[in-house]
Amino acid sequence: MSNKRPTVTIEAASAACCEPLDSGALSEADAEYAATLFKALADPVRLRLFSRVASHPAGEACVCDISDVGVSQPTVSHHLKKLREAGLLTSERRGTWIYYRVAPQPVATMSALLALGS
Amino acid sequence: MSNKRPTVTIEAASAACCEPLDSGALSEADAEYAATLFKALADPVRLRLFSRVASHPAGEACVCDISDVGVSQPTVSHHLKKLREAGLLTSERRGTWIYYRVAPQPVATMSALLALGS
Repeated sequence: MSNKRPTVTIEAASAACCEPLDSGALSEADAEYAATLFKALADPVRLRLFSRVASHPAGEACVCDISDVGVSQPTVSHHLKKLREAGLLTSERRGTWIYYRVAPQPVATMSALLALGS
Repeated sequence: MSNKRPTVTIEAASAACCEPLDSGALSEADAEYAATLFKALADPVRLRLFSRVASHPAGEACVCDISDVGVSQPTVSHHLKKLREAGLLTSERRGTWIYYRVAPQPVATMSALLALGS
């Protein structure tokens, strides 16, 4: 999936969280990309998984630490895959377990959009 | 629509942008509510309209200022309605025109979730 993701050209994507963008004239390509990020979090189970990974000590979480969201393990796996495919989480297998981290760049892109004008 | 929206109990919803939440244990009700906010921005046209309103001088925009997003006027109206229904924009009619503003509280809720762990 990652090869389908366009290059991010939103100016403030790499800026610190909540630094306003210079312009509200979001390009069509940037809007398409950013919409896929918001869509990835437009689901309550994915939001709960994302929040568990993001707030886990050391910034990473094993799937065994974050699965208590009231759905089956295959459903957890499905949603973690969606978050990975959108680029919001990265994963690394170590031994038996897969560990997840939040990818800072896409989150900064979303935060910058939300901070526009503030 | 607004009477269907649950009370927000996310602790940091009223906090300044990017102040981390204390816990990643997002409740089911909070996750349901937050997912509706992310869903409202999971569309490129809505993102472009939102960014135009957010970055407009004085923090508000007339529909006449923000309609150049490459879709028909009825489509613009449809998407502005979705953003209003989700609570992300407020609107006020003055004379012939409707003026839109970003609603700070839902945006702060989303920003706080994105800032978890940062």
